[in-house]
Amino acid sequence: MTELLDRHRRAMGHDAPLFYEDPVELVRGDGVWLEAADGTRYLDLYNNVPCVGHANPRVAAAIAEQAATLNVHSRYLHANVVDYTERLVGLHHDGIESVILACSGSEATEMALTMARSLTGKKGVICTDATYHGNTSLVSKLTGLPVGTDRDGVRSISTPQMYRPLANGLTEAELCQRYLDQLAATIAQFEADGLGFAGIMLCSILANEGLPTAPGGWFTEATQMVRDAGGFVIADEVQAGFARSGNWWGYDTSGFTPDIVCMGKPMGNGLPVSGMAASHDMITSFRGKQRYFNTFAASPLQAAAGMAVIDEISDRDLVASVASVGAALKTSLLALQADHARMGDVRGHGLFIGIDWVVPGTNEPDVAGAAAMVEALKARGMLLGKAGQHGNVLKIRPPLVFEHTHADVFLDAFRQAVASAHN
Amino acid sequence: MTELLDRHRRAMGHDAPLFYEDPVELVRGDGVWLEAADGTRYLDLYNNVPCVGHANPRVAAAIAEQAATLNVHSRYLHANVVDYTERLVGLHHDGIESVILACSGSEATEMALTMARSLTGKKGVICTDATYHGNTSLVSKLTGLPVGTDRDGVRSISTPQMYRPLANGLTEAELCQRYLDQLAATIAQFEADGLGFAGIMLCSILANEGLPTAPGGWFTEATQMVRDAGGFVIADEVQAGFARSGNWWGYDTSGFTPDIVCMGKPMGNGLPVSGMAASHDMITSFRGKQRYFNTFAASPLQAAAGMAVIDEISDRDLVASVASVGAALKTSLLALQADHARMGDVRGHGLFIGIDWVVPGTNEPDVAGAAAMVEALKARGMLLGKAGQHGNVLKIRPPLVFEHTHADVFLDAFRQAVASAHN
Repeated sequence: MTELLDRHRRAMGHDAPLFYEDPVELVRGDGVWLEAADGTRYLDLYNNVPCVGHANPRVAAAIAEQAATLNVHSRYLHANVVDYTERLVGLHHDGIESVILACSGSEATEMALTMARSLTGKKGVICTDATYHGNTSLVSKLTGLPVGTDRDGVRSISTPQMYRPLANGLTEAELCQRYLDQLAATIAQFEADGLGFAGIMLCSILANEGLPTAPGGWFTEATQMVRDAGGFVIADEVQAGFARSGNWWGYDTSGFTPDIVCMGKPMGNGLPVSGMAASHDMITSFRGKQRYFNTFAASPLQAAAGMAVIDEISDRDLVASVASVGAALKTSLLALQADHARMGDVRGHGLFIGIDWVVPGTNEPDVAGAAAMVEALKARGMLLGKAGQHGNVLKIRPPLVFEHTHADVFLDAFRQAVASAHN
Repeated sequence: MTELLDRHRRAMGHDAPLFYEDPVELVRGDGVWLEAADGTRYLDLYNNVPCVGHANPRVAAAIAEQAATLNVHSRYLHANVVDYTERLVGLHHDGIESVILACSGSEATEMALTMARSLTGKKGVICTDATYHGNTSLVSKLTGLPVGTDRDGVRSISTPQMYRPLANGLTEAELCQRYLDQLAATIAQFEADGLGFAGIMLCSILANEGLPTAPGGWFTEATQMVRDAGGFVIADEVQAGFARSGNWWGYDTSGFTPDIVCMGKPMGNGLPVSGMAASHDMITSFRGKQRYFNTFAASPLQAAAGMAVIDEISDRDLVASVASVGAALKTSLLALQADHARMGDVRGHGLFIGIDWVVPGTNEPDVAGAAAMVEALKARGMLLGKAGQHGNVLKIRPPLVFEHTHADVFLDAFRQAVASAHN
């Protein structure tokens, strides 16, 4: 292991990101289970990419068959690619009619921002102050951008949330209005500065922000305000989409209707697939201006994997399963709060649950405690991570095929881990 | 077909790029052959991505096995990923020690430009005036950039070439010096303007430029000049790499030693894989500054496909085969020039050959004639395309497994196509 770790660092650079104090070497997966080289079996509560399960047989078979048949770029016609793109847009609300496929979520968010600016002829883009939408030069401008900063036409608003702000004595409605006023002011400032306003990009469930619960009505009113100001509403569904939140799309869960949708991680169950979707007129206009082409995208291989993923979600009724298992798990975790003062806030949607880990008796983020919990859970065969604005939110985000029995296994380990991490 | 085309345009946007007046609907591939839905078999002289052949059994089996075993992101250790990255850097010159894998060529060139700027602390980047290095906001600044234009710190130099300029009475050495002087002036201007100089990005065989033959010594002297000025030499091997030019790398063919290498298209035989490689210190320093992470990259699935591609190239001795078949094909095409006045210039390396299609008796680009040739060859079952600064260069770039017998089939069709396209 140490030798492999050394070789990994040499071949990929010394700061190549790795999880855990002792990184895990994995050799195989099966559903919600992962097996390490030392024989340890882990319950996977982290991975959203293999959404229909590790080594899903139907997806693996579809990939195998297509790789042995044909895989070419999208300047030839291919029936499966057309079938897949039609199926994909058909999963969205009526305003989403066409899609441009790409390989990574970053490529999708790049296209969305470029399209919003191109079609409005304006530059100003708004995001939250604790987000991440990708790694390219353009979209990394949205990463961890403090309120009041301008990065080449990108500005942020405070992440809408209730847990800590409500402790300061505001009502939920007052808090919502405060966030809306800040949004209005940010839009107005873009106009005043001569940049104009192109739109907002939002993870539809505020995943990287730590899954905060926004004040009721915020998503609906904020997105209406954006549209009234002539901007596009861009939903980043890279993490939120494909049944994760207990609906097909995070925007259904949060209650808004985007003009542009970005998709990625779970689309191909691990095969690189992403996409940016909007109305037919918007996509056609963007294509006319940008002549976008992506070598590996809209390929028969992407279509085969992507179609198998949609088939699995549909045929196994995973939207309903995620809603049911996620709700039960959240209820169980909420019940544990009474005995565990470090569980400051339990929140989230479907199978994406966050636990805001705090110093007991306060709402102060306990980053070290959250890190200790991640390691203590790993020692008990549970793989999960942490996220959020302060890095103290335990992130529970297993494959969608996670069932009630798996939740029970996790809850047992969780109780033990709290005791050992904070003994 | 018309119905499929309509559906394609509706689902992907009306200007989704497609080849040919009547686009081809493909259903399967095998080696250098492609089969359309109407039963037509085409000899593929276009596709560089399925480098070891369409539906290559070894690559397809490797993908199938890995998809059925495990595919996860790179924050866990995986032995195959380490093996693959080591093998990949081992194919390069000694200064290339570490690699960051990504999904698309654009992601690789994005990283390379960002790294060059980050490590030098300078902004100025040079490219040629007829190139393409990717589709993101940052790297698309290098697309078709006229000399004398500044795009946010990117400036171009004239594409070094001999065919047309030498007709104006210069010697090759004079021409080379003229190009070098222009490069020196462009570097000096960056310094004068306070931007400083970060480096040059070059396709190592000038593929999108139309494969012009640069004056002897230009690559060696130009890259030395860049390095002397403190800039990095970035070789874009996305098209040139993996045996395409009859060597493993285009920089071997053109005679220079890059500091940074970008790889893409052929790496996974169609599975999305790309990478950016440099010295271990450079990669580590970049990682420390950027915390780069790519969800789908450095995965066991990428490693399985990538390793199988390298194995095929090595075991089938495709570097030698490409050099041999490519040289013979070029010789045959050069022999045809005497009887075909439209073949203004035949050039290229290995299995990447360009024919500069001209108005007979002149060196004027014949764009319509080249387009007619593409269609006439398609009517004879030959798929190829056109490229270059003027869009008049017939581009011959088949899978690497293209053999002498395939070249004979093509040459017969080529003679017939010239007669029919220009009758």
